[in-house]
Amino acid sequence: MEQQATKTDETEAHAGAPESVAMPEPMTIHDEEGGLDRDFVATVRDAVDAENGTALRDLVEDLHEADLGDLLQALTPEQRDGFVRLLGRDFDWLALTEVDESVREKILASIPNETIAQVVRELEPDDAVEIIANLDEEDREEVLAGIPIAERIAFERSLDYPENSAGRRMTTKFIAVPPFWTVGQATDFLRGNSRLPEEFTEIYVVDPRFCFLGTVPLNRLLRAGAEERIEDIKGEVDYAIHATDDQEDAARLFERYNLLSAGIVDENNRLVGVITVDDMVDVIEAAAEQEMRRLAGVGDEELSDSVVYSVRSRFWWLLVNLFTAILASSVIGLFDNVIQQMVALAVLMPIVASMGGNAGTQTMTLAVRALSTRDIKAIRPGRFVRREVTVGLINGVLFAILMGAIAGLWFGRLEVGLLIASAMIVNMIAAALAGILIPLALFSVGADPAIASTVFVTTVTDCVGFFAFLGLATLWIH
Amino acid sequence: MEQQATKTDETEAHAGAPESVAMPEPMTIHDEEGGLDRDFVATVRDAVDAENGTALRDLVEDLHEADLGDLLQALTPEQRDGFVRLLGRDFDWLALTEVDESVREKILASIPNETIAQVVRELEPDDAVEIIANLDEEDREEVLAGIPIAERIAFERSLDYPENSAGRRMTTKFIAVPPFWTVGQATDFLRGNSRLPEEFTEIYVVDPRFCFLGTVPLNRLLRAGAEERIEDIKGEVDYAIHATDDQEDAARLFERYNLLSAGIVDENNRLVGVITVDDMVDVIEAAAEQEMRRLAGVGDEELSDSVVYSVRSRFWWLLVNLFTAILASSVIGLFDNVIQQMVALAVLMPIVASMGGNAGTQTMTLAVRALSTRDIKAIRPGRFVRREVTVGLINGVLFAILMGAIAGLWFGRLEVGLLIASAMIVNMIAAALAGILIPLALFSVGADPAIASTVFVTTVTDCVGFFAFLGLATLWIH
Repeated sequence: MEQQATKTDETEAHAGAPESVAMPEPMTIHDEEGGLDRDFVATVRDAVDAENGTALRDLVEDLHEADLGDLLQALTPEQRDGFVRLLGRDFDWLALTEVDESVREKILASIPNETIAQVVRELEPDDAVEIIANLDEEDREEVLAGIPIAERIAFERSLDYPENSAGRRMTTKFIAVPPFWTVGQATDFLRGNSRLPEEFTEIYVVDPRFCFLGTVPLNRLLRAGAEERIEDIKGEVDYAIHATDDQEDAARLFERYNLLSAGIVDENNRLVGVITVDDMVDVIEAAAEQEMRRLAGVGDEELSDSVVYSVRSRFWWLLVNLFTAILASSVIGLFDNVIQQMVALAVLMPIVASMGGNAGTQTMTLAVRALSTRDIKAIRPGRFVRREVTVGLINGVLFAILMGAIAGLWFGRLEVGLLIASAMIVNMIAAALAGILIPLALFSVGADPAIASTVFVTTVTDCVGFFAFLGLATLWIH
Repeated sequence: MEQQATKTDETEAHAGAPESVAMPEPMTIHDEEGGLDRDFVATVRDAVDAENGTALRDLVEDLHEADLGDLLQALTPEQRDGFVRLLGRDFDWLALTEVDESVREKILASIPNETIAQVVRELEPDDAVEIIANLDEEDREEVLAGIPIAERIAFERSLDYPENSAGRRMTTKFIAVPPFWTVGQATDFLRGNSRLPEEFTEIYVVDPRFCFLGTVPLNRLLRAGAEERIEDIKGEVDYAIHATDDQEDAARLFERYNLLSAGIVDENNRLVGVITVDDMVDVIEAAAEQEMRRLAGVGDEELSDSVVYSVRSRFWWLLVNLFTAILASSVIGLFDNVIQQMVALAVLMPIVASMGGNAGTQTMTLAVRALSTRDIKAIRPGRFVRREVTVGLINGVLFAILMGAIAGLWFGRLEVGLLIASAMIVNMIAAALAGILIPLALFSVGADPAIASTVFVTTVTDCVGFFAFLGLATLWIH
């Protein structure tokens, strides 16, 4: 922890120095953690509130789109509209690709469709598609109608791909060369061309029918002799990403094969676009985040969403949990006689359930993760089940001894200790089995294990915990 | 779900086709999900068990290191040693950077230190450092002693950086050119040089003291005229990554600014290495995964770890949970009189606690995530707290009405319904407050919110839930 503090200080000292040299204004834009400086945000707010377009322009004109996005997020909805309006043509529309969906929707709603139609033509195709996709049906039609047909067709084709497909993430602006060209021809082509993508790291080799043959990373192009032929230096592509593939599958290939960019093909192996790693980084992070949220039942909620949206999105998960909690309670209800005879049972029973719930969550988290990274195939489910049951049994015995002793002393009765110890062992084994088998079962029927496992696992550990503890107590009392 | 199944089929059909054309052997290596084919793994196993080095070599020689890593994970520890031994000099050591730490350690332990010393010299420096770092103290000394001094010093310097620092992830093999060179000079240098990194996407500009001045992406180099000067086409670097910075902070910059690679500097702004985005993709995924595991209390455990390691790593979390569960139980213990008078309370009390626990976990997950991505600064904590309490209050009232009605009907007493309804509202508000304030408090004292929030939040919701429900019942009965 201390180390982290030291490091942060260094970053600050360092990040501050080159900026103050390079820029005339004395304003600090970033704080020590790389986020936006609080005073800077306040100054921007004031400029917006004062409708001072000149001051605003001076403040934000050099900002990176990511910083501009953060800035938009920090403003109130009214300020955001004012911000975009005051900047006018100087507003960097890329910032819209960096904000939450709900923020983007609201900003777009305040802008005339003709302006949007003009703006998207200046963006890279993948960014433009992201913005158009966020408009509602009617606005989308109107915006598309305002774009010349040649460009419109490309947008429409991208929009035809399903929402989370690779096709939606690809740019249609890339460099394709025939295999029979020489390196010299390719280099001249790059040098003389003004319509190249802004940044690129490789060029793509296609045959006359635009079938995808391979890629040439720029460093290989630079190192090759001018007379060498493209087909002789091109790299083989031993994976294929279809435009209709899920973007998470595409991201997994990027991660696995350390790709910087990849050609995207249609059903006839024709090159239709290119995906770059920066987009895949976002997909990878979003996928891991989504899994975490799903395990906790908060879905796709964002901090900037409205209260109504949050209430609704969480309500369903809580409702499911209410019914499973009632189910567990009805297990307790079966044993109300024995509880009346010995109130100690009511005091101790949540401990059995809670320990089972936690042990089950541990196993479940490993299982869900292993399923989504496909690691579980490498280790094989059978081995995983045996392993988890063994871990559950050992920890079950350890905690049975510990809790048995505590309970025995607490209530001054050895039998109470033995009772909770036995129930604890039973529930820890049940937890291990539920923690692994429930995600596996959900996965095998095609459901997302992250979305429902938590509910099922804790239902099992609650019910088994209460049943084992109170059931054993009944046997022993009668 | 159906859609996913369809897509997978397409991938299979497609991935199969080019491979069978390009490769002579009829063996399928990948299954439809991009993992290793089960039969292929079995064939490899058989070759290892039969000590058939020739067959093994034929099977695996064309495999990508990622696939080779998966293959190693799928073998038993004995088979792994045999696998490496049978392949001998044909073993691709990069595969070791793709396996779990515990697997890597065991394989390295079976290999003579002289062999390791030879091998690491052939790897890229960052991969070599990753392998050397995994050796124990004694072996590390011996391996380093077997490496010629010039290379050894570079390795030792990298190893001097803290374990999760940017310095550990950087490669020391990169291309640096002076600012006064022309594009033509730089291109000639690249063409004539046989000691370049295997792949690179940009070159770095340094002054005579090796101070970092900027970068030139290869696409810019290719497009520029031969007479242009490097300093005129170089890009500004408006972030600085120190070798001692945490690798997660570096990864966040990559994500934020869509970087492909970045120069790493020492405390005097001298360029000491380069980090590439493929390594950062792993860091980003690992960071999100770690957060998920910490929330569930499974630490850095891997599927391939031993049972003993898992038991130990989970024991501590369960122990902490045991004590918080006992704390919650002792709250129940305060009210044993009232439970004896009305057993319905014992039946219903877990519902109040469980609903609070789930609502608290929802808020906490959002808060932990927002803290680690720094989103929380954009929205400001005060706004977040108000928002969460409002959501908690609304859902609290909704579920109070619902559960109040159910409990009233279940036990045929209106008062029971009113009791649980009031306790539910109190606990849902407590859950919202705990879910946001606990992670914020942990974060502000420099602790990792992911590692302890779950325990504290559920302790609060359990205790408040039991106390509110049973306390109100006591007031009402007396």
